[in-house]
Amino acid sequence: MQMSNTFDGTPGRLLTAMRAKNPLVQNITNFVAMNIAANVMLAAGASPAMVHTKEESGEFARIATALTINIGTLSPDFLAGMKEAARAATEAGRPWVLDPVAHFATAYRRTAVAELLELKPAIIRGNASEIIALAGSRSSGHGVDSGDPTHAAEGAAIALARQNGAIVAVTGEVDFVTDGGRSARIMGGSPLMPRVTALGCSLTCVTGAFAATAPDKPFEATIAALAMFAVAGEEAAAGADGPGSFSPLFLDRLAALTGETFDAKARIVAA
Amino acid sequence: MQMSNTFDGTPGRLLTAMRAKNPLVQNITNFVAMNIAANVMLAAGASPAMVHTKEESGEFARIATALTINIGTLSPDFLAGMKEAARAATEAGRPWVLDPVAHFATAYRRTAVAELLELKPAIIRGNASEIIALAGSRSSGHGVDSGDPTHAAEGAAIALARQNGAIVAVTGEVDFVTDGGRSARIMGGSPLMPRVTALGCSLTCVTGAFAATAPDKPFEATIAALAMFAVAGEEAAAGADGPGSFSPLFLDRLAALTGETFDAKARIVAA
Amino acid sequence: MQMSNTFDGTPGRLLTAMRAKNPLVQNITNFVAMNIAANVMLAAGASPAMVHTKEESGEFARIATALTINIGTLSPDFLAGMKEAARAATEAGRPWVLDPVAHFATAYRRTAVAELLELKPAIIRGNASEIIALAGSRSSGHGVDSGDPTHAAEGAAIALARQNGAIVAVTGEVDFVTDGGRSARIMGGSPLMPRVTALGCSLTCVTGAFAATAPDKPFEATIAALAMFAVAGEEAAAGADGPGSFSPLFLDRLAALTGETFDAKARIVAA
Repeated sequence: MQMSNTFDGTPGRLLTAMRAKNPLVQNITNFVAMNIAANVMLAAGASPAMVHTKEESGEFARIATALTINIGTLSPDFLAGMKEAARAATEAGRPWVLDPVAHFATAYRRTAVAELLELKPAIIRGNASEIIALAGSRSSGHGVDSGDPTHAAEGAAIALARQNGAIVAVTGEVDFVTDGGRSARIMGGSPLMPRVTALGCSLTCVTGAFAATAPDKPFEATIAALAMFAVAGEEAAAGADGPGSFSPLFLDRLAALTGETFDAKARIVAA
Repeated sequence: MQMSNTFDGTPGRLLTAMRAKNPLVQNITNFVAMNIAANVMLAAGASPAMVHTKEESGEFARIATALTINIGTLSPDFLAGMKEAARAATEAGRPWVLDPVAHFATAYRRTAVAELLELKPAIIRGNASEIIALAGSRSSGHGVDSGDPTHAAEGAAIALARQNGAIVAVTGEVDFVTDGGRSARIMGGSPLMPRVTALGCSLTCVTGAFAATAPDKPFEATIAALAMFAVAGEEAAAGADGPGSFSPLFLDRLAALTGETFDAKARIVAA
Repeated sequence: MQMSNTFDGTPGRLLTAMRAKNPLVQNITNFVAMNIAANVMLAAGASPAMVHTKEESGEFARIATALTINIGTLSPDFLAGMKEAARAATEAGRPWVLDPVAHFATAYRRTAVAELLELKPAIIRGNASEIIALAGSRSSGHGVDSGDPTHAAEGAAIALARQNGAIVAVTGEVDFVTDGGRSARIMGGSPLMPRVTALGCSLTCVTGAFAATAPDKPFEATIAALAMFAVAGEEAAAGADGPGSFSPLFLDRLAALTGETFDAKARIVAA
């Protein structure tokens, strides 16, 4: 890791603390992501719970240590549960993370994300097209894949962070994280990662686990989550023959990553 | 296998019979489990069908040879479908298995499980915290992971079995199965198994497949299902580097397990 | 590939064209299939989007280049979204593919499929039992597995194609594709494939990606999709120890398959 003035701990110490806490994180995510996200959470060292219906999502959000919300396969029932949970999390002082998947694609999605933004996410994570569109700029995204490179979204990310008082993370070939003032870039990962579905969604859930561990340091928590994916992804890709063999290796590397190795391998620079 | 007076057949013979029957089992399970549970069922030798909506769940329950119900990602629509199916299964004389995932976590879940229990499951499978709470005792569980060791749940399991006239299975490091009179413990498995999501949910589905094969012997059927997971899990763990590589190996071992090897390796003792 | 008079291009050229286009395909599929189908699409070279709710499914169908609909875990909410999307796709001149999973099993499913057929799918893909029953004949299917061999469904497939003005594909040990006039058989694959859940559902999605690439040649597109599965499945099975290790290898082989290798290995004959 290249030391950065944005850190007073290290990502490795945060990882060790996260595993010691084994935080219970509530994830209201999409149907594509549910299984891989839960496996990624368990491998990383957190305790995932997928609880979405409005009849219990608010009650559960008060038990969980963090909440993540992902609109990938949105529907009115899920949206109602998301709002209940987000309100309860905010009331209980729990951080929550928003993943605005392809929010620009339809009117229904745009309205839903506008409503969720009002409920004050602590962290917003998306690809470049999603962040550019969310900040009100023009994006070239189509569907869930990003049509824009991350560096094109840095200005939008900073503006979005200031507008919402939230940490904003843009993930892609190089990741970018900002709180509106401080910013950092994270290198690593592999071109195989966008060829495996729902890894971005899974990263949103892991971001929740780190945020639960350091709720007063969401900027550092977000960086640690992204860097963990970058390191484990790079390691897994070295042994993979394609996107299929990548996935089991990635889970193994997440589980095997120690705090020390993490600090040695993470490539984080202040931006 | 250490012979036990609780068996007049052997788990290996039950496995061979299950595969010959290739039972069609209806599973109303959670979104996290649906894919892995179906793959586990196919690997074990059963024919899974995920049919949940109340418009057809009852009709389908009369076609299927067994039903399993898991409340992991509960919602009103799914709960309505579960009740229809459970009623139809009971009327048609089909065994059904209840998996009360984290039922103690919210009021909504507690009520739902109370309603489902009234519909007379033949078998109840849970982790120690779930079984302790279901029997009316105090548990230390949080979310879907068990905070209690299985031996702490043995008394609760026996009480629950007697209250409901059902087989109760507590799974964990050592599994425990009871019909309220006879009891058995099953050894095996691997510490990697709780680090892979929804294996417990998948086991519930496989329990349904064995129950469909020996509907008059739900105690023996439950033991066989748990022992199959214990043997295949132990074999898979021997070749795995972590939770990611464990899953494909586990499916391979389930598929490759013969009745003879199963009988030779199963560690079941009367309790 | 054995040359066939049913082709004026080659499957390899279609594959290369599909990857160049990276078509955005909307899939309204079942909960079991969502993750593996998205991974199969990404590995093959397409861009999947799972967008199902009626509040946005029609709007999204006008953005996507093709639509696939699969009734595996049907419910009223999903059915409403399917109809909206199918209507919009047809209006926008986009091809859509119907996968009538176990449509014969319940009255609810039979009615739903009849309604969907009226919305004019370009392609229908099913197993032998599903196609036989859809053509109005008697089938021996139970649940999602086929009780009938594909050759028994060839007459039904031709009749169904003529009734609906659609391409009909019957998949199994040998695949059969017909437009009611021309027909072809595709050889390859592996007995491991029906032991992995939702590969048929995933194939339906990939058929949508090829149909989006050659919307004026749905017969050739369907053959290419089936042949791609047959070649990659055969290659993956050669290295697999069971259904668990098959899946990652299959994704790797889909991603690694070049147009040239595809043309060299595809076994397609006019029927």
